[in-house]
Amino acid sequence: MCGIFGIFDHLEASNHAYLGLYALQHRGQESTGIVSSDGKQLHHYRQMGLVSEVFTKDLLKKLSGRNAIGHVRYSTTGSSELKNAQPFVADYANGMISIAHNGNLTNAVPIRNKLESQGAIFQSNMDTEVIVHLIARSKEKTFLDRTIHALRQVEGAYSLLFLTGKEMVAARDPMGFRPLVLGSLKDSPVVASETCAFDLIGARWIREIEPGEVLLINDAGIKSFKPFPHKQLRQCIFEFIYFARPDSFIFNHNVYEMRKTFGAQLSKESPAVADMTIPIPDSGFPAALGYAAQSNLPFELGMIRNHYIGRTFIEPDQRIRHFGVKIKLNPVRGLLNEKKIVIVDDSIVRATTSRKIVGMFRNVGAREVHVRISSPPITDPCFFGIDTPKKSELIASSHKVKEIQKFIHATSLNYLSLEGLKKCVRGEEKNFCYACFTGDYPYPFQTEI
Amino acid sequence: MCGIFGIFDHLEASNHAYLGLYALQHRGQESTGIVSSDGKQLHHYRQMGLVSEVFTKDLLKKLSGRNAIGHVRYSTTGSSELKNAQPFVADYANGMISIAHNGNLTNAVPIRNKLESQGAIFQSNMDTEVIVHLIARSKEKTFLDRTIHALRQVEGAYSLLFLTGKEMVAARDPMGFRPLVLGSLKDSPVVASETCAFDLIGARWIREIEPGEVLLINDAGIKSFKPFPHKQLRQCIFEFIYFARPDSFIFNHNVYEMRKTFGAQLSKESPAVADMTIPIPDSGFPAALGYAAQSNLPFELGMIRNHYIGRTFIEPDQRIRHFGVKIKLNPVRGLLNEKKIVIVDDSIVRATTSRKIVGMFRNVGAREVHVRISSPPITDPCFFGIDTPKKSELIASSHKVKEIQKFIHATSLNYLSLEGLKKCVRGEEKNFCYACFTGDYPYPFQTEI
Amino acid sequence: MCGIFGIFDHLEASNHAYLGLYALQHRGQESTGIVSSDGKQLHHYRQMGLVSEVFTKDLLKKLSGRNAIGHVRYSTTGSSELKNAQPFVADYANGMISIAHNGNLTNAVPIRNKLESQGAIFQSNMDTEVIVHLIARSKEKTFLDRTIHALRQVEGAYSLLFLTGKEMVAARDPMGFRPLVLGSLKDSPVVASETCAFDLIGARWIREIEPGEVLLINDAGIKSFKPFPHKQLRQCIFEFIYFARPDSFIFNHNVYEMRKTFGAQLSKESPAVADMTIPIPDSGFPAALGYAAQSNLPFELGMIRNHYIGRTFIEPDQRIRHFGVKIKLNPVRGLLNEKKIVIVDDSIVRATTSRKIVGMFRNVGAREVHVRISSPPITDPCFFGIDTPKKSELIASSHKVKEIQKFIHATSLNYLSLEGLKKCVRGEEKNFCYACFTGDYPYPFQTEI
Amino acid sequence: MCGIFGIFDHLEASNHAYLGLYALQHRGQESTGIVSSDGKQLHHYRQMGLVSEVFTKDLLKKLSGRNAIGHVRYSTTGSSELKNAQPFVADYANGMISIAHNGNLTNAVPIRNKLESQGAIFQSNMDTEVIVHLIARSKEKTFLDRTIHALRQVEGAYSLLFLTGKEMVAARDPMGFRPLVLGSLKDSPVVASETCAFDLIGARWIREIEPGEVLLINDAGIKSFKPFPHKQLRQCIFEFIYFARPDSFIFNHNVYEMRKTFGAQLSKESPAVADMTIPIPDSGFPAALGYAAQSNLPFELGMIRNHYIGRTFIEPDQRIRHFGVKIKLNPVRGLLNEKKIVIVDDSIVRATTSRKIVGMFRNVGAREVHVRISSPPITDPCFFGIDTPKKSELIASSHKVKEIQKFIHATSLNYLSLEGLKKCVRGEEKNFCYACFTGDYPYPFQTEI
Repeated sequence: MCGIFGIFDHLEASNHAYLGLYALQHRGQESTGIVSSDGKQLHHYRQMGLVSEVFTKDLLKKLSGRNAIGHVRYSTTGSSELKNAQPFVADYANGMISIAHNGNLTNAVPIRNKLESQGAIFQSNMDTEVIVHLIARSKEKTFLDRTIHALRQVEGAYSLLFLTGKEMVAARDPMGFRPLVLGSLKDSPVVASETCAFDLIGARWIREIEPGEVLLINDAGIKSFKPFPHKQLRQCIFEFIYFARPDSFIFNHNVYEMRKTFGAQLSKESPAVADMTIPIPDSGFPAALGYAAQSNLPFELGMIRNHYIGRTFIEPDQRIRHFGVKIKLNPVRGLLNEKKIVIVDDSIVRATTSRKIVGMFRNVGAREVHVRISSPPITDPCFFGIDTPKKSELIASSHKVKEIQKFIHATSLNYLSLEGLKKCVRGEEKNFCYACFTGDYPYPFQTEI
Repeated sequence: MCGIFGIFDHLEASNHAYLGLYALQHRGQESTGIVSSDGKQLHHYRQMGLVSEVFTKDLLKKLSGRNAIGHVRYSTTGSSELKNAQPFVADYANGMISIAHNGNLTNAVPIRNKLESQGAIFQSNMDTEVIVHLIARSKEKTFLDRTIHALRQVEGAYSLLFLTGKEMVAARDPMGFRPLVLGSLKDSPVVASETCAFDLIGARWIREIEPGEVLLINDAGIKSFKPFPHKQLRQCIFEFIYFARPDSFIFNHNVYEMRKTFGAQLSKESPAVADMTIPIPDSGFPAALGYAAQSNLPFELGMIRNHYIGRTFIEPDQRIRHFGVKIKLNPVRGLLNEKKIVIVDDSIVRATTSRKIVGMFRNVGAREVHVRISSPPITDPCFFGIDTPKKSELIASSHKVKEIQKFIHATSLNYLSLEGLKKCVRGEEKNFCYACFTGDYPYPFQTEI
Repeated sequence: MCGIFGIFDHLEASNHAYLGLYALQHRGQESTGIVSSDGKQLHHYRQMGLVSEVFTKDLLKKLSGRNAIGHVRYSTTGSSELKNAQPFVADYANGMISIAHNGNLTNAVPIRNKLESQGAIFQSNMDTEVIVHLIARSKEKTFLDRTIHALRQVEGAYSLLFLTGKEMVAARDPMGFRPLVLGSLKDSPVVASETCAFDLIGARWIREIEPGEVLLINDAGIKSFKPFPHKQLRQCIFEFIYFARPDSFIFNHNVYEMRKTFGAQLSKESPAVADMTIPIPDSGFPAALGYAAQSNLPFELGMIRNHYIGRTFIEPDQRIRHFGVKIKLNPVRGLLNEKKIVIVDDSIVRATTSRKIVGMFRNVGAREVHVRISSPPITDPCFFGIDTPKKSELIASSHKVKEIQKFIHATSLNYLSLEGLKKCVRGEEKNFCYACFTGDYPYPFQTEI
Repeated sequence: MCGIFGIFDHLEASNHAYLGLYALQHRGQESTGIVSSDGKQLHHYRQMGLVSEVFTKDLLKKLSGRNAIGHVRYSTTGSSELKNAQPFVADYANGMISIAHNGNLTNAVPIRNKLESQGAIFQSNMDTEVIVHLIARSKEKTFLDRTIHALRQVEGAYSLLFLTGKEMVAARDPMGFRPLVLGSLKDSPVVASETCAFDLIGARWIREIEPGEVLLINDAGIKSFKPFPHKQLRQCIFEFIYFARPDSFIFNHNVYEMRKTFGAQLSKESPAVADMTIPIPDSGFPAALGYAAQSNLPFELGMIRNHYIGRTFIEPDQRIRHFGVKIKLNPVRGLLNEKKIVIVDDSIVRATTSRKIVGMFRNVGAREVHVRISSPPITDPCFFGIDTPKKSELIASSHKVKEIQKFIHATSLNYLSLEGLKKCVRGEEKNFCYACFTGDYPYPFQTEI
């Protein structure tokens, strides 16, 4: 998964790009980069690591100019290497061009094969690089038209920012898989994956960039284009379930409220006789609140999160049980003794963490541990930008709910139903992609021509 | 403030010290150190920084031996320099000695002056160093007796761990200012500031080390001594209010439950007509839960915490308002519009942060912001180990509650009353120190002979 | 300037590449990289910095496989950025390809312009990248033929190493500007810019790779091709004067001996009445020995070099004169008082350093300072790989020898004559390039089509 | 071994201390530190590593004030740990005190034992710390008198610098083992181990600080004291042979000239029939020049030193012979084939390096390798500050010259005779310490009371 941010015509463009990426850090922690434009030249810096570790005052000063785009990345396609860090920068016949991409193209492989057969060379193994080649080969006259020409040839999920010497272009694929929002910082246009980036820099939210929309931002202002044929929307429901920050407003909804609704619906479908509701920090919080309110069970912070998780934690003695989770979470011992508890989390992937968490609660004396998951079972990998593991590693692809319940030693286990989930986005059911729960993909993923 | 940890006779002593300190990181983030003993020699490493950043596998391997003590420090006395990192290690006539200290001695200055007049030299400016000199000058025969002899001469707060080649000694001052708990990891004795350190390594809680108790731990087992005259207990109430981790069990109480009780009592004293209760993450959580439950106001996570706070954050453009807080916290915009809210926090020190937080809620449309603080106004500095600023910087030392309310732009502001606070520790009121709310210190702080 | 190294079919390919580059570090200190091939895949790592700082044991372990090429770079074309570090790696229709280049193409700009007009995108601003594009666009059947096809289109200086999954190709331009030598480590072929790389790894020198020669190295052994029309050799005389290490054997000569010959010839042309000959460490050593022996003046180490030159030296107080040089060099005070001295250096570029050095000798009491330079005045920049500054910064391009003598405060100043220089390479005068002394370039440098 | 530097009453005191230490880096590469005084307080920073790596502009800025002393250390007593880095700083009854020490006390152990029996605690395991304790316990009135009182109790080698809030004191032991020179930078007094530190900062040499002299430097100027009974001088001859920089002037002699004299004397005693004289870089240079001139053998740079020795060199394949030396040195192949050579080095310690060097020359075809050493065989360890290994590791302590010759595969091996060495310091034979060649120590080394 990735996060992107752009700002146009602002005195402190790269400083604000830094802040915007900082707010979007949850969308990718592997690498980050910023490209700025001073009206003539592009300046860029990319590195593995967190935004706050990668950039220094000196580096930001070198990223001069009034326009900037930036990127945080957690690998989807492309291996975890510096060459795959974005924004991607290249030189072509019309000058320098830079691109930041959130999403995943499903026909990148056949396009790349064709380009290579025509003599193209590739520097990265990101799907994003094919877009740059398609732009460079386009015979259209303007950068905007070359970009549209290129995007007409690709399929899949893309929320994109382009930066050239004088222009910024924002684009969102016709199905609208990934969020992309438009705002303004005083008079300077800003674009970001989520509104939390606007909040940090004090920018004002204007609107979603619409699915299939291309925005051209330059000294003449902002112009909107809708160059692609209309398609049925397929916004990623998982952004609501887990990925986006709860304080963001995307797909025209407040994420926090949506998660609470999921929890409330889950409670309606799968109540439990218990003493309290406990969220798994921090992603399970809003759904647990919804569950607790709906079911009238006391909401308790029965699991505490350590705030000082280091990146280089040294593994001790293997005999200590549940270790990976233990350095992050610890149950509140006295609260739980002999209690029947409901724990609420957003999703289960491999179930190994859930198993450890249930074990930790049982260790401190919980008598019954009812697990409630505020999404349906994940049975299929995502080809549109979410970094789920392959199908064989998804426990729900091969195990029934009862089997998973047994594996994690839960007293009971219930997922939110797909119907329940759809009910929560009332009236917009058709506008979302549920492929990770159904395997029903809007596009096939092509690996060969 | 500081945290200490010790383990005796365990194959992986320094690895467990590392983990124990990791769990105690909230008690001090400035520097950390571990000293191990292999039965003959002490090995030590200290450095500025977080536990997870300072220690590497190689360093821990060099800290060999079956016994270890460790320390995390946030400066109380002594400036923020490497020489003030602990454990402090020195050589004296009877070999090597190491000491880790949580607390603050109130008569260190006159003792130091006297020692210097006799030719002693000092390496640090920590109060702790005087204890080592007093031990070195004691004519008693055993290390235990020399230590007791030294401790008889000091006043103030101390939870201490000593390590020599063959012995570990734990001691807690007669008034019991700071917590200190005893546990065991299988058959190996462990000592820590809080029980959360036991949870991480899988150790079992045995009991509090009692005020005025000295424990000698060596190959013969654990022996308890009570060498000091009995004194009225003065356990630090602020450990419950803010300092300790909510999942810890100290002073024979569960911290999380105690904080909820504070919140409930606060609600009884100062209810509010509002739409919801919002905790200030993360320290205000348990009290806010208690407040919400008691007052029957919905509990909402109206303020979201950024998980990726970097240590080297670059300050942008000064014109962005409320910046320091903004990189950590962000309100949930849609939830708050036109709402009357109660926000619950544990304490107010300078009030600048509270002012920013109230401003952030007002910026996103909150109509009324009722601030509730789950402790009385802090009017006086602590001389017993809590790192409060000097009196002139404590807003409540010079301003009335109404004035503070105005300063932070709150619709209403209420603190928990001192009587209410005492009610919460039902029956143990006399056993706690409330000096930061009253200025009534159990010992004077001596700066001269 | 740059240095390249390659090894084929050796168990410790990347370790030896590391060592070979270490020995070639004098050819470029800006960035370094190694690419290895395990028969299928290429693995690579590039970074700004010195060989000994960039690579770690772990990194070298990841560079697995029996074949490797490496590069050290000091920028010639392309700015000082990571994207310009080599070896350059790309993907094209026939798989992965990697290239390491020493030299400078004179027609890279028009070729790049043409490629871009056909839709090519460029990642770096190195001339080297055009070769990869030309290979990718070639319709030839084998990698060797594609490479030859590409090299037929470029002009200028190139000593090249290519690595694919299964083959290594070495090539040297028809004029032979830059050195390239072939050796073997037991049965494994090795290729390097200079023989000093062979000495460090214990490899045996076999022969020069000849100008215009292309070597194909694969599992079938080494095959030599001469696919280009014959041209008059133009080996870089500056490799002898300054660039190569004195212990190397290149262009079929021993560098150390050649430099001594330059010094002896300089003495014949420009003797001096003086008390001693002093070399400027370390590059002036061999020529000074030749000068001293020929002129029968005692050879004295009158200038001492500091061995601990740090990279991050902090500039002090500007009032200290001659600072930049002073941290590296210091005259032997007692030796020089009232003495007439000859100092021998290899070349003068801007003359600011020479001026400081003469000043330092005068400061310690030298009565006469006769400066002797073992090369002719540098009047023109190099377009073939040596990183000389532009013409306007070369003092000899605009000043007569007498003027330079005055500028540097020398008692006398003499350069080796061009005729004298040619005499030293007896019988091979025509095989060298003297363009930096004459402006008579073998190729024009093209910046436009 | 160590180097010390001090400057008093200069606007840029710590910057100049940094530079002075930089010039003295050859005297110790393990750790470094600077202490400054602003007239009231001492500021200090110490760290493991090279001067140029340890200090940054920001750190130097924090070392404010017009007075500063600094230290570079290579361990003599005290293990290689940060706590043993100097200058040592402590607090005592009369304020802060700092000390930098070059040398080694021979009675530190009994003094330390006695101090500990009186209750003193020690922070380091350096002999230097006892001096601070002795000063703190002195009942004398002034700092100068306390220092003299303390120094009267110690034996061994010491060149010392002390810094307090208002005074700097320099002291040299009565036998004058280690050098210490006085200079001035404009009107500011400077003190350093060697004059090369003066050259770098542009200071003027005034004179040696005399053996047994104590200098008090304060706002009233410089006052000289001679408080100790007269003793026979025992200046370290090894400073001339190897340790000091050749461009320094110490013990009232030019080091470079002295080394040339050693080489000439060696040639007189042990001529060789050979084609050339080759120095082992860089320490053998001056002696080789003297040898070559005296014996009329051509001087050739037959061994080239790599300038880019990294600190973190990765050891390759063990089968490569002579590896440790190979990364530093490489013979000039063509020059040596079938030649008879004399190689000149300053000393042999364990002989393993000499053995590798002879092997390298033989590998490139040298027919005869005559080894000449410009000092007598080292048979005994130094207790006065030179970091020689213990007796059992000194090859000459247990092997005859003929046996060493055989071990290193030399055609012939000759050392400078002790008589020859004494002849070189004509008239001052008695003023030097030759204990490392004779075992005749001026003081015994005491390990117990």
